[in-house]
Formats: sequence, C-alpha cells, structure tokens
Amino acid sequence: MCRTCDHTIHGRQHHFGWDNSFEPAARVAPGSTIHFECQDASAGQLTPSSTVADVATLDFGRINPVSGPIYVDGAEPGDALKVTIEGFEPSGFGWTANIPGFGLLADDFKDPALTLWTYDPSTMEPALFGKNARVPLKPFAGTIGNAPAENGLHSIVPPRRVGGNLDIRDLSAGTVLYLPVEVAGGLFSVGDTHAAQGDGEVCGTAIESPMNAVLTLDLVKNANLKMPRFTTAGPVTRHLDAKGYEVTTGVGSDLMEGAKRAVADMVELLDARYQIDPVEAYMLVSTCGDLRISEIVDMPNWVVSFYFPRVVFE
Amino acid sequence: MCRTCDHTIHGRQHHFGWDNSFEPAARVAPGSTIHFECQDASAGQLTPSSTVADVATLDFGRINPVSGPIYVDGAEPGDALKVTIEGFEPSGFGWTANIPGFGLLADDFKDPALTLWTYDPSTMEPALFGKNARVPLKPFAGTIGNAPAENGLHSIVPPRRVGGNLDIRDLSAGTVLYLPVEVAGGLFSVGDTHAAQGDGEVCGTAIESPMNAVLTLDLVKNANLKMPRFTTAGPVTRHLDAKGYEVTTGVGSDLMEGAKRAVADMVELLDARYQIDPVEAYMLVSTCGDLRISEIVDMPNWVVSFYFPRVVFE
Repeated sequence: MCRTCDHTIHGRQHHFGWDNSFEPAARVAPGSTIHFECQDASAGQLTPSSTVADVATLDFGRINPVSGPIYVDGAEPGDALKVTIEGFEPSGFGWTANIPGFGLLADDFKDPALTLWTYDPSTMEPALFGKNARVPLKPFAGTIGNAPAENGLHSIVPPRRVGGNLDIRDLSAGTVLYLPVEVAGGLFSVGDTHAAQGDGEVCGTAIESPMNAVLTLDLVKNANLKMPRFTTAGPVTRHLDAKGYEVTTGVGSDLMEGAKRAVADMVELLDARYQIDPVEAYMLVSTCGDLRISEIVDMPNWVVSFYFPRVVFE
Repeated sequence: MCRTCDHTIHGRQHHFGWDNSFEPAARVAPGSTIHFECQDASAGQLTPSSTVADVATLDFGRINPVSGPIYVDGAEPGDALKVTIEGFEPSGFGWTANIPGFGLLADDFKDPALTLWTYDPSTMEPALFGKNARVPLKPFAGTIGNAPAENGLHSIVPPRRVGGNLDIRDLSAGTVLYLPVEVAGGLFSVGDTHAAQGDGEVCGTAIESPMNAVLTLDLVKNANLKMPRFTTAGPVTRHLDAKGYEVTTGVGSDLMEGAKRAVADMVELLDARYQIDPVEAYMLVSTCGDLRISEIVDMPNWVVSFYFPRVVFE
C-alpha cells in the first residue's frame, strides 16, 4: 500500500493506555509519512472463530492497543500535530459487541452479544449483517492522539483534548486532523481501527477491524488549540444517505437522556419493522446510525435525533 | 402553489403558545391537504427595514405565532398524526438575530445583533451573508406540533413529545413526520418557518422567514409513539456538503459543555480566517453549521463536533 512511507510501525510496537514516559517507537522529522499496523480493539482476543462467550471473558487490560508512540522532532507544548490521513488497508474481518456495562443503553442490554463481519477489503462493498441488512463501509481510526501532559498511566477509554479514543467517524481517508501537543515530541499513537461506525458509536463498539493506516505527521507551531479540530476533503455521509433516513427523536431537558430515548426508539422501530432481535438492532445501528443535535436553544428542552440510513435495508 | 389543497389557513388564524382549549381554525378529514400561511417568528415585528434596536425591544409575548389549530376528525390520544410535508412557498425575506439571554453562547454574546437576508424565492440560490459567504437554503417549519394534553396555556418556546418548536432542519419538503396525539382532534399548528438552519440552531435563530407551507394531515391509529419520528425522502445534507467541512470538537463529560466548546472554537476559527466579527460568525454558523455527537460511550468523556460547510466560503 505505502510506496512512499518513511517509517513502518509494526503491530508489536503497541501500548495500552497513555503515558508520556513510554519510550518512542520511532523519532521522525515533521512531514514524515508513516505506515502503522494496527490491531483491532480487542488486541486479537476476538477472532473469526470467536463466540459470545469470548465477549464475557475479555481481558480489559488489553483493550485498545495503539501503535506508537511517535516522537515528532521539534513538537512542543502549544503546537498542533497536523495528521493527514492518507488511507487505510482494511483486513476484511470485523466484530461488533455489546459489552455489559458499556454503551449508551447499558441499562437495557445487560448480556454480552457478538456480531462477526466479513467484508471484501478490495471492493469495500457494504458488509452483510444478518440476512438482508448491508452496512456501507468507511474505514477510520477510532483512537488517534498524543500523550497527555499529566504524568502516569491514563486509561485508553476516554478521549481527551490531546485526542485519543475520539471515535469520530469522519477521521477517514482525506481528512486532516489537528491535535494539541502537550509534551515534547507529541508522542502520537493510533489504533482501534473501524470499518464503519455511526456518529455516537451507540452500543460502544463499531465494526472493529484490524487495519493498516498511512498517516503523514507534521507540525503547526504555536497553534494553541483548545481541542482537536479537523478538515474533511469532501462530503462525509454520501456512503449512507442515498435513500434518506428513518429518524427517531428524544425531546427533553437532558441531552444524554434525549440520546438514549432516540436510540431506544430506533431499536424498537427496527425490531417491529424487520423482526430484528433488539440487541442485534442495537449493534447494527451503532455501525451506521448518526446522533445529531437538532436544537439546543429552545429552553428548557433540547432535541437529539438519531438518523438510521434506509439504504441499509432498501 | 397549492392547486389541490382542501383548506387554507390564513396568517390571521394564528395563536401564541399552546392551549388545548383554543378553538380550531378548521376541522378536516384525515388525508386533507392544507395550505398554511405562516408568519415569521417575530410575527412581523422584524421587517426588511428593521435595525438592531428592534431586536432589543422585541415583544416576547408575540414570539412564534403558529397557524392553526387544525382538528383532525377521529384523532384520539394514542394515535399519531402523520404529517406529509408537501412543500413551501418562501417569501424571499429573512432575518437572523442574537437575542440577549437566548442561544447556546448567551454568556459570551450579551448584546443584540441582527442580520437581514434577501434571497430569490424562485431559484432558491444560496443567500449572501456579508461580502462573500453564501448559505445554501432548505426551507422547513421550525414549529410544528399538536396541543399537549395538560390544560392551560403553555409557552411556545420548548418543544414537547407532541412536537412544537422542534427546530429540526430536515422537516423539509418530502419528509413525513409522525407526531403523538394527546387530545381529541390533535389540534395541529405550524409556523416559525426557516429558509435555512444548521443542526442545533446554535445562536437561537435561523434564517427566520415568513413562508407558506402545504401539508397533508393523516392518522395512524394507536401508533403509541413515545416521541416524534420522521422519514426523509432522500439525502439531507447534499445542499451543504459538496466541499466538505471544517470541524471543531468539544471533548468532555458534559454534552452541553462540549457543544458550547465546539461552537465557540468555530466562531474563533471563522473570525481568524475570514475576519468576521464574532457575533456575525455566531449568527452565520447558526444558519448552516451542524452539531453532531461523534461518540457518547467512551466513559467518562463524550465528543460533540460542530460541522461548518466549507461551501459557504469556497
């Protein structure tokens, strides 16, 4: 895939959690293009032969390995790391799980569940779910970030202002991401690659899929970003939107409760219309349904909407 | 516009607030198509000759007049009103205001501000903002709903499970909306028409524009909806997405704070890049920027992203 890369970070060169004392896997000049081999979010614990029993016994100490860290010469606190997302080399295997205690509707879905996916990494045709649902694919890296300034080992789970487990679906090929730098060199790592995800990642997992990524790392000196920002090269939902959407809403004074209401109602709608088991519908919508804030100003009630792309069934 | 309408509700047939004791403006059979004349959200207080002084003296007792109510024969609590949004007849005039105390960044923008818009209602070409920004148009009704079951007069401002001031950008031509019915006849009204708005309506107003609307009202008996839902006929962002997006993010444990951070950073970005006065940028992004929830599961931090369509400047 990468004919012009300056460096390769192999899958064994990974770490769990963020710690600014981790030894860099490579030191690179600004402008370097790097080929990252990324494991899936289970670090290989889930495979094409896994069953739901393997979800129940996942070792959470080995969740979300990230490949790196990369020390970028000259990066200093206050700079931004400019990450040009050149492309991905997907593997063709993926999984989506409901992990007890994790996910937007954790109170409703307490039992582990697992969906295994296969897709064609050369054509990237929509991936079959169940008997007749097809989920359009758009690969991206769920976890992408720099090391935080605060010393010590930090959980990989929450994203931070330096990035990390952002799970932003549009960090796909062609996007340019700007991440605050908090330590010398930035100490950038990437992993948790996804073949597809909806905005929200509502069940807690996407189509989790091992994948290689090619990224170019550069610097913007003294950018003084407060938070990550990014620029997309073009439209972001055209793989999903051709047939329009079914949309459920949550109206009320709490955005989190509104999101839960909208997603729960969509699960119920898909169950009623397509006879999909609720936990299956919950995993399906996590890979392709989008949470949007329709209004956030009409005091005291806000509207969160959940957009399910009809192309999945039509 | 409407050659096949069964009824016309004139602009004078409006009410302020919701009250299930309001006398119906019309009683209609299910399946009726109705031509609604809708005033703008200021009920004509703001006009093409208004200045910012008129924002400061707005009479809030006359905000968001809605045309109706319509009593739909046979509608009963537990049913859903099926509203097919046939189309709009825009006027060509609009306004966007920053109203003190109202809007996502009310703490940052305390002074009134006003933008007046003109657009071509026949071509619906993007509307000019300032010297070189052009906002794509997509008309819809910001306030659309049934009367609530609870007796008495209720503020027009917050939306409720029966709908109302939903401000959902995609309630545009071709969309079919389903609203819970809580009282006999439903008592449906519509107004607060917008020529364009981004998801969130972040400054509190959109391109507020008087407009006629044609809607078909039908019933789904015993639908037992918990909240409004809708089906779009096709893609929802293609008027905006051709050139991609600039995106800012808010990462943290509170969705509301994340939304504020993302919008504030976008205002700052547009100010720095295009030398737009911050309050002008705030009003501009309210008409075209979209708030999305990128992830809502990576405890304890969520990511809210604000998507500004680059086509506005490019």
